Amino acid sequence: MKIIGKMGSKSIKDTDEIDLLNNNNFKGFLIKLADRVNVAEGVSAIESILRCIYRNQPISTKKIAQYTKLPLPIVSKVRTMLERNRILSRVEQGAVYSEYGIKLINKHLNLKMKHDLKCPKCGGKGILLDETFKKILKKHREYTKLRPTVNTSIDQSFATPETGVYRAGIMADRGDLEGKRVLFIGDDDLTSLPTAMTDFCEEVVVMDIDDRLLNLIDNISKRENLNIKTIKHDFRKPLTKDFKGAFDVVFTDPPYTLNGLKLFLSRSVEGLGEGSSGVLYLAFSHKPMEEYLEVQKIINSMNFAIYELIPGFNTYEGSEIIGNTTFLARLMGKNLKKFKNEEIDLNKLYTGEVKPTIRYYKCLNCNRIHSIDGRSLCIENLICNCGGKKFKMVKRKKVKK
Amino acid sequence: MKIIGKMGSKSIKDTDEIDLLNNNNFKGFLIKLADRVNVAEGVSAIESILRCIYRNQPISTKKIAQYTKLPLPIVSKVRTMLERNRILSRVEQGAVYSEYGIKLINKHLNLKMKHDLKCPKCGGKGILLDETFKKILKKHREYTKLRPTVNTSIDQSFATPETGVYRAGIMADRGDLEGKRVLFIGDDDLTSLPTAMTDFCEEVVVMDIDDRLLNLIDNISKRENLNIKTIKHDFRKPLTKDFKGAFDVVFTDPPYTLNGLKLFLSRSVEGLGEGSSGVLYLAFSHKPMEEYLEVQKIINSMNFAIYELIPGFNTYEGSEIIGNTTFLARLMGKNLKKFKNEEIDLNKLYTGEVKPTIRYYKCLNCNRIHSIDGRSLCIENLICNCGGKKFKMVKRKKVKK
Repeated sequence: MKIIGKMGSKSIKDTDEIDLLNNNNFKGFLIKLADRVNVAEGVSAIESILRCIYRNQPISTKKIAQYTKLPLPIVSKVRTMLERNRILSRVEQGAVYSEYGIKLINKHLNLKMKHDLKCPKCGGKGILLDETFKKILKKHREYTKLRPTVNTSIDQSFATPETGVYRAGIMADRGDLEGKRVLFIGDDDLTSLPTAMTDFCEEVVVMDIDDRLLNLIDNISKRENLNIKTIKHDFRKPLTKDFKGAFDVVFTDPPYTLNGLKLFLSRSVEGLGEGSSGVLYLAFSHKPMEEYLEVQKIINSMNFAIYELIPGFNTYEGSEIIGNTTFLARLMGKNLKKFKNEEIDLNKLYTGEVKPTIRYYKCLNCNRIHSIDGRSLCIENLICNCGGKKFKMVKRKKVKK
Repeated sequence: MKIIGKMGSKSIKDTDEIDLLNNNNFKGFLIKLADRVNVAEGVSAIESILRCIYRNQPISTKKIAQYTKLPLPIVSKVRTMLERNRILSRVEQGAVYSEYGIKLINKHLNLKMKHDLKCPKCGGKGILLDETFKKILKKHREYTKLRPTVNTSIDQSFATPETGVYRAGIMADRGDLEGKRVLFIGDDDLTSLPTAMTDFCEEVVVMDIDDRLLNLIDNISKRENLNIKTIKHDFRKPLTKDFKGAFDVVFTDPPYTLNGLKLFLSRSVEGLGEGSSGVLYLAFSHKPMEEYLEVQKIINSMNFAIYELIPGFNTYEGSEIIGNTTFLARLMGKNLKKFKNEEIDLNKLYTGEVKPTIRYYKCLNCNRIHSIDGRSLCIENLICNCGGKKFKMVKRKKVKK
């Protein structure tokens, strides 16, 4: 998960004197608002927040962020500004329109849909778990409780157990598990577990740099007789010879940076075989348009084509500040090409390296505040002076270069 | 709709003497089969047919083609060959596995899923029509009955009324209709009707070269008070000044050739505004991998990114020989660029120009056979010597250049 916009620090100008019932004034107000919160998607982001609230009011800031696929800090800021301008009010269950707000929205945006058309049965995913997969979900829920704490310095963040099982479900549905050799390029989400629990695959191999995750997968694999092979691997190095071209399908949820994408996809290509063909499932964060375009150009340049793309397919547990989801894309490739290591900036793989951030954690025992920059010390290694080992993130701040 | 493979003319070699229970023999058999029917997707196409039948048996050839998104003639040929090799049998309702076939499939492909996970409520589309849209569908079903015959020389083919209404539904759901100016670059599917019936849009404009369709849309628009503006336009020419940059959203279902795509998307960019941003809905046929990649490179080079892609979203009425569906993609673009006319081969816009085909039609009155090459005379202008005006296509043949 990654924050895809920056918050403006300037305070909003009082618009009390401006008549927002005038169409041009309202348009100007939206532009100013988009500008103030510095959201990459511009006015369309503000409109999508307004539309989301109209269809779902009352709704919490977190849910607005999930629905609109915008960063939570941006949504929070926009909501506050809309409140200051008396367009929104705040009730216990979340944001609602004021009478004045409804008037503006009807007049200027022609909003009429009071609900969306998302299928209530599958939540828009298009697939549904059958009894077999429901049983897998029940088990997977228990196993995911055993996960270690996330290592944010390498952009770990854990997908929900539901996401893991739906991923296995969609791969099975699309014919990408039965009789197939499946490789996970990184698996902090533990998606290999529900995948192997189907008993559909010829082989399931997990590569990751984190011993804690590999050990956990090993233990569960033994207990459930899943036969998952785990390999400790630093993806800055190429796959070893045995694993090159040894797979039909790869799943990866790489760091959400362009260099992270290039690196993880290059290892995926090695697994499928350079010059060969194969299927790749990619989970990646919703990006502002320019970056989205870069992502797709990278994908295409490796000779992968996007056969299917489902926005918001994956949801993640953890930090309150990030309410976001990521998309899932099914790529197919032929005559596959990878990037050479010299074409990848290995110093800019992780979000923390591209946009350095300081996180502040409160000890749940003594309330002492600790700051973590994610480069030297990670939250999972933090022990408070009082001996406390449980923390809650209370704030995060971007570091200006 | 377009045929995306070629049928081999060689007869299949008798494999009676080969033991297909041997894994290598079976693999070789699949490769040979893919080779014989000359399917661009190779062995994975054969596997996907085998998987489809396993999950849905008994199933008709047409339904297999829809499910696998492969051309019907290919599916038909594969089915026949699998029957000759005693892997499939033929019952009244369609193809089923023989006992021997099941044995092979279980042994070599590890097929275990007896059904897929597609959501039964929304059919995998992820959205569901509400009461408003159901009413629109009821009306639209009646209006689509008034459509003229298709002009195959310009790749016309009619989407089902359901597809039209689901298109309007998904555009509304994604926030691309309310208060928006919407342009249709070609509308043989009459998607503008359900779109305008929502009463969500600020403006709906349809451009097409076919007077018959424009008149029909005009008449229905007047009757239903839809306020659709229709413009006769040949897309080989740029849009006129008034329409440049005049729209927020464009919908197009272009001819399924790379030059057709370039041309229709370039006009779409003019409608959204060169250098500007906007949303584009693109319906396009499922292509073999290399061509898919070309399609996506064209899209990206115009600065559109694929935000969502749903395979098989659109289904079409008409010719029995084509059982296929197309995908729907939601693209967003910024700083949009178009192709100049000199970068587009205007002589290769339509399928008939890229892959010339002769179609044979039988007069339903006197059974006389007529051949049509789709360039000089079109089926909708054909009158039999007996005076008959109703025909059925009985065969089609590619013309070798």
